[in-house]
Amino acid sequence: MSDHQTFEAGDVVLQCGITLKGAKLAFKTHGTLNAVKSNLVLFPTRFSGRHGDNEYLIGEGMALDPRRYFIVVPNLFGNGVSSSPSNTPSPLDRARFPSVTIHDNVLVQRRLLTEVFGVDRLVLAVGWSMGAQQAYQWAALWPDQIERLLAICGSARCSPHNFVFLDGMRAALTADAAWRGGWYDEPPAVGLRAIARAWAGWGLSQEFYRRHMYREMRYATVEDFLINWWEGLFRQRDANNLLALIWTWQHADIAANDIYEGDFERALGAIEARTIVMPCRTDLYFPPEDSAYEVRHMKQAELRIIDSVWGHYDGGGRDRESLRAIDAALKDLLAD
Amino acid sequence: MSDHQTFEAGDVVLQCGITLKGAKLAFKTHGTLNAVKSNLVLFPTRFSGRHGDNEYLIGEGMALDPRRYFIVVPNLFGNGVSSSPSNTPSPLDRARFPSVTIHDNVLVQRRLLTEVFGVDRLVLAVGWSMGAQQAYQWAALWPDQIERLLAICGSARCSPHNFVFLDGMRAALTADAAWRGGWYDEPPAVGLRAIARAWAGWGLSQEFYRRHMYREMRYATVEDFLINWWEGLFRQRDANNLLALIWTWQHADIAANDIYEGDFERALGAIEARTIVMPCRTDLYFPPEDSAYEVRHMKQAELRIIDSVWGHYDGGGRDRESLRAIDAALKDLLAD
Repeated sequence: MSDHQTFEAGDVVLQCGITLKGAKLAFKTHGTLNAVKSNLVLFPTRFSGRHGDNEYLIGEGMALDPRRYFIVVPNLFGNGVSSSPSNTPSPLDRARFPSVTIHDNVLVQRRLLTEVFGVDRLVLAVGWSMGAQQAYQWAALWPDQIERLLAICGSARCSPHNFVFLDGMRAALTADAAWRGGWYDEPPAVGLRAIARAWAGWGLSQEFYRRHMYREMRYATVEDFLINWWEGLFRQRDANNLLALIWTWQHADIAANDIYEGDFERALGAIEARTIVMPCRTDLYFPPEDSAYEVRHMKQAELRIIDSVWGHYDGGGRDRESLRAIDAALKDLLAD
Repeated sequence: MSDHQTFEAGDVVLQCGITLKGAKLAFKTHGTLNAVKSNLVLFPTRFSGRHGDNEYLIGEGMALDPRRYFIVVPNLFGNGVSSSPSNTPSPLDRARFPSVTIHDNVLVQRRLLTEVFGVDRLVLAVGWSMGAQQAYQWAALWPDQIERLLAICGSARCSPHNFVFLDGMRAALTADAAWRGGWYDEPPAVGLRAIARAWAGWGLSQEFYRRHMYREMRYATVEDFLINWWEGLFRQRDANNLLALIWTWQHADIAANDIYEGDFERALGAIEARTIVMPCRTDLYFPPEDSAYEVRHMKQAELRIIDSVWGHYDGGGRDRESLRAIDAALKDLLAD
């Protein structure tokens, strides 16, 4: 028995102009949709994350309490559960998997909610990292139907520095000739190890390492952390899936569509949701300055910087204090 | 005619226990040693830099005025001019080039100054990045002979985060099978491009990219900057040389020797030089917090943070305002 459900989206014409035939959107729900369909929370997945990885923010007594809310967790295309390079048949398999945008993802998620659940109004859209990019896109596309928005360590548009950082990660992975332009049969293990090690300096802050906080995650040394955490994480993943998600992330922009025609500030200004934007003080790829810019251009957004040394990982629930702060922000948003 | 001189250091027993036979220390001098030998400034090279790369801080009217000071610029072992994987004969060539520490470098530099110039007292030791690591090591090893110290965007010890960042760079370069464990005949071009792209996000700040300041360096787009600047820079370099320097950098620690036996704070406390430590506010791998820690443990050091968006590159003279600030700090130090 599967731990998730799948929405058969049929043939989806992507922004890039390619049709993703037989698109599959995998999702998991928590709780029950109430009779008046007014309790749906959307909580999309992050880079390389899967529906199960979002459960750190869901639970009885927490803001996202499944006794009260119907929480839908859609999987990003490319994450290996929804349609991805690793699970799509020829001719769109592996290196031929088409470029999917955040906008493409969100349009299919929208169809899931309307066609399967008959819901077009969200109590809340919430996400961490690429999850936040999706939540932002929802709020910008249907301003009067998204009541609340929480963006954790994410952005409404990939910044130039964030783009460059990701491009370095892509370069590290694809430097392995075993990648074969995406047509590998065996995983490019050297490249997967390289991207893991190259990501390690970005994911957590200088202070995290200075204080040897990997020990709190039960790794004895830096090298232990690099091998058993970082390499372990990436070697479980499919290289083409990672590259597909990196492309999606690099091209994230809530204004890159026919409605906003690239006008980023107009797209931000259109958002009606009551919003809290929560960057982490020490996040190296979603620094608070980018969030501050977004908040300045939104109608009713609060900037609430998490003062943590966990860098980007701060949003992932591993740090108890940050987790409490995020849960508190959710409770504040959901209070009225 | 060569633009530099070479000190034949003979057989040098390194900290790792291997003898670097026929060690060559390449150096360049500016100005003239005065009769009482009281005007020598030491200005070692940075990661992958060569003696010519230090000339941005040397010139008439600048603090480091060759009419007044005798400025000696020694090349780091591994930089391709001093003994390096690329220029050392078998059996210590290429992948077999031994691990050289900052301490090893500085001991040979010391011999250059005493044996060739008869000088053991320095007016000033100054360096940027790995150059600062060498300057710190000088000040810690001969406290009563180094009068002044300026450390620009560098550290007295490689921090754990800095180590991890460098390890990611190493992984990106060596992911290219053409590297062949160091025994390549043709350069591993894919790996060199990968390290270049992976370094690009680290060398300059998020703000630098947010403001598109690569345009000030006359690159039209991010991709133009990545190819023509970053890839151009790294593809001129030898892969084994880069790896040798990364090892040296990762193991930098002024206390990793018989005198201080790993007691970092004692080594910092031993420094007598009048010191200015100049990190850049936005440096991603030598963040100001590490410099602040060092300053707190030194006798007469001032922390003077450069408020620039140029990140680590701030110390390299490309930003005119930062260059003026560094020159002013040198003038302040040299005033008495």
